[in-house]
Amino acid sequence: MSSNGRIRISGLLSPAELEQTLRRIGADRYHSRHPFHKLLHAGKLNKGQLQAWALNRFYYQSRIPMKDAALMSRTSDPDLRREWIRRILDHDGSGPDTGGIERWLRLTSGLGLDAAYVMSETGILPATKFAVDAYVRYVRDQSLLQAVASSLTELFSPSLIQERVAAMLANYAYVDRKILSYFDARLTQAPQDSNFALDYCQRHARSVDGQQDVVDALYFKTDVLWAQLDALYYAYVEPGHIPPGVFIPQTDNI
Amino acid sequence: MSSNGRIRISGLLSPAELEQTLRRIGADRYHSRHPFHKLLHAGKLNKGQLQAWALNRFYYQSRIPMKDAALMSRTSDPDLRREWIRRILDHDGSGPDTGGIERWLRLTSGLGLDAAYVMSETGILPATKFAVDAYVRYVRDQSLLQAVASSLTELFSPSLIQERVAAMLANYAYVDRKILSYFDARLTQAPQDSNFALDYCQRHARSVDGQQDVVDALYFKTDVLWAQLDALYYAYVEPGHIPPGVFIPQTDNI
Repeated sequence: MSSNGRIRISGLLSPAELEQTLRRIGADRYHSRHPFHKLLHAGKLNKGQLQAWALNRFYYQSRIPMKDAALMSRTSDPDLRREWIRRILDHDGSGPDTGGIERWLRLTSGLGLDAAYVMSETGILPATKFAVDAYVRYVRDQSLLQAVASSLTELFSPSLIQERVAAMLANYAYVDRKILSYFDARLTQAPQDSNFALDYCQRHARSVDGQQDVVDALYFKTDVLWAQLDALYYAYVEPGHIPPGVFIPQTDNI
Repeated sequence: MSSNGRIRISGLLSPAELEQTLRRIGADRYHSRHPFHKLLHAGKLNKGQLQAWALNRFYYQSRIPMKDAALMSRTSDPDLRREWIRRILDHDGSGPDTGGIERWLRLTSGLGLDAAYVMSETGILPATKFAVDAYVRYVRDQSLLQAVASSLTELFSPSLIQERVAAMLANYAYVDRKILSYFDARLTQAPQDSNFALDYCQRHARSVDGQQDVVDALYFKTDVLWAQLDALYYAYVEPGHIPPGVFIPQTDNI
C-alpha cells in the first residue's frame, strides 16, 4: 500500500494474481459504491437529478469512441485494431440510430431532455468535461498497455448495470425498458470487451513495472468515474451548488 | 447570451468594450463568489479544511510554470517570451526558496502539512488534477490568443487576495502574515501580468471570432477555478464525501 492507499506491486504476479488484484481495486474503488449511485438505485432522485445524470453521462458516452480511436491510432498490430474496432461500432452503430450513443439519447429523451440540447453539450458540468477529457488524453498519451488497462472498469459494469436497470424500473414510474435499451446491449458487449482487455494485460504486463502500470491505469479510470459522480452529487443533490452556466432542472422536476 | 448563459459577441467591440465584457464575466463567474471562499473568508473552515484547500491549491501552483512554459513554447516572438518569462521566474524563483511555489509551501507547512507529502501529490483530489491538467492542455492546444486570454482571471485576483489575507489573519488564530507571504508577492505580480495580457488581447483580437475566443477562454478559466472549489466543498465541507485515496484530515483538526 502507498500513502494514498493504492496497491504497490513488489514482485511479479501470476496472471491469476494480477486479475485478483484488479478485482480487488474494483471492489474498493468502482463507482458502484458511490453515494450518487446509492440514491439513484434507491429511487431517491427526482426527475431533474436523473436528467442531470443522464445529460452528463452523455458527454462520457460521446467521448468513448474518440478514446477508442485514439487507442487504435497507436498500434501497428492489425489483430488488436480488429478486436478494438468493435467498441467503436458498438457505440456509433453501422447507421443512424443503431449505436450506443443513440441508445443513450433514448434515455435522455425519455427523461424529457431535448436531444439537440443534450448534443450541444452546453449544459454539461465543467468537472464532467475535465474528467472525461482527461480519460481521452490518458489513452492518447500513456503507454498502449495503460491505454488498454484503463478500459478494465468494464470488468465490473455488468453487475452494476443489472442492479441499475432493475432498480430504475422498480423505482421511477416514468422509466420503462425501452429508454434503458443502452444497458441491455452493454450486458453482452462489456464482458466481451473486458475479457479481451484483461487477457491482453495479463499477456503484456510481464514485469513488475508493467503490472504496476496496469494497476495504476485502473486506479486512474476509477478516479475518472468517481469524480463525475462527485460533481453530480455536489451540483444536483446538495441544494444551491449548481455551478454557473450549466443545466438547471425545471422546477416541476424537482 | 447563449443557452449556457455565456456572452455571445455579435459585433466587433472597441478595446474598452472588450475589457468591460471581460470584467462582467469576472463579476459573474470568478471564484471569489464561490461558497467555499465564503466559508474560508468568514472563518468557518476548520484546520483540516484549510489544509485540504492549501494542499489542493498547491497542485494548481505547481502547474502554472508548466502552463507558462507551454505558452512560451508556442510563440516565435521574443518580445512576448521576454514578457511571459517573468511569470515562470515569479513562481520558480532564481534559486531555492525564492519563488511562489515555495512560498505556497510555507502556507501548507504553516498549516501543519509535511512538505514532502504535499509535493508527492498523493493526497490531491482527482478532480483538482483533472481541472488543472485541462488548463495546462488548453494553453498547449488552443490558439495563442486563447492561451494568453486564459490568464485574464488575474485581473480579478488582487481584490480577492486582499480580502482573503485580511480575513485569514482575523479569523484563524494559527495563521500569521509569514505563512501568507505568497499572497503579498501576488499583489504586485498579478496586476503587471494581467495588464500585459489584457493589452495583448485588445491588440490581437481584431475580429468578432477573435474576441469571442478571448471571452470563451476566460469562461473556460473561470470554470477551471470554480470546479476546483466545487470538488473541495463536496469532499471536505459535506461530511462523508471524501473520495478514495486522497488527503484525510486528522481528527484533531476537524
